[in-house]
Amino acid sequence: MRLPKKERQKQLQLFLEAEPFLTDEEMARRFGVSIQTIRLDRMELGIPELRGRIKQMAQKNLDRVRSLSLEEVIGQVVELNLDHSGISVLEIREEHVFARNQIARGHHLFAQANSLAVAVVDAELVLTATASIRFVRPVRLGEKCVAKALVTRQTPHRTQVDVQTVVENETVFQGVFDVYRSKEDK
Amino acid sequence: MRLPKKERQKQLQLFLEAEPFLTDEEMARRFGVSIQTIRLDRMELGIPELRGRIKQMAQKNLDRVRSLSLEEVIGQVVELNLDHSGISVLEIREEHVFARNQIARGHHLFAQANSLAVAVVDAELVLTATASIRFVRPVRLGEKCVAKALVTRQTPHRTQVDVQTVVENETVFQGVFDVYRSKEDK
Repeated sequence: MRLPKKERQKQLQLFLEAEPFLTDEEMARRFGVSIQTIRLDRMELGIPELRGRIKQMAQKNLDRVRSLSLEEVIGQVVELNLDHSGISVLEIREEHVFARNQIARGHHLFAQANSLAVAVVDAELVLTATASIRFVRPVRLGEKCVAKALVTRQTPHRTQVDVQTVVENETVFQGVFDVYRSKEDK
Repeated sequence: MRLPKKERQKQLQLFLEAEPFLTDEEMARRFGVSIQTIRLDRMELGIPELRGRIKQMAQKNLDRVRSLSLEEVIGQVVELNLDHSGISVLEIREEHVFARNQIARGHHLFAQANSLAVAVVDAELVLTATASIRFVRPVRLGEKCVAKALVTRQTPHRTQVDVQTVVENETVFQGVFDVYRSKEDK
């Protein structure tokens, strides 16, 4: 049963607070309405489209990356708390997929996760030592990969970072990165 | 003690048969002579420089890659025995390194190894499931990474491929890739 418009807009706002990377397509599916309806809802509520929301998030809540230039991070960093956590978003475009089947090549997901794992570490020199990764399901052209990194262990010279990448709340990639960081920075 | 020229050229040929990816620099070091001397030796012996040797190898001894387009493999494939083994070479250029320290970014080494692991599998559809990798030592601008892949286990739908990447016989990267392949191709 469809919700009345007022109720739908209220829920839509709550959804987006909880999951800011929801696409219009996914919201349309959840509410059983057209994408156009969701777009109108967003306009009435003054909520920018996903790309705009990502940009907004990237402008606040962002520690300065120390180990890399920000443009060396693969994907757009939208949240960064050094030595704690970070989030980045990578949209899968033509250059990321296999010509044959439009599935994203694994090394791009790896690059997003690995560079985010390095970016969250609060040191000048950070190098990846080991990684254990799992490609949970194929990612396709046009999908938006949201990688979430969490520092799970710190010793004087090493940091362990767990990264989980989701597409619309479905896990597509998991990785545990063990990185060295230079002594003088801790 | 330096070897006489004749003896050096004989050994140089033997070295290159055993290790075709030796650079002139490394040979010069081994023989305690200048790089120019090695170049002259090669010219006298009619042995092309490394780049030429790689091209020669790429033209023979190469099964047809089934799972990818050959140009989708990162690095140049110089040997390929489907469902058995493969070798590729990646030269680290400006676009592969961190601006700050000229060290190769990990995801390029990962991409070389992962795409080679996929290329050696004799099936139309091959997707990486998991990988365990280790960056053994940093790789720098200008170094030539030789990745060697070996199929170590086969079950009806999965193949395990071990990849070891060396720079002048020093291991820089190790990875174990577990890949799915499509049923109909086995």
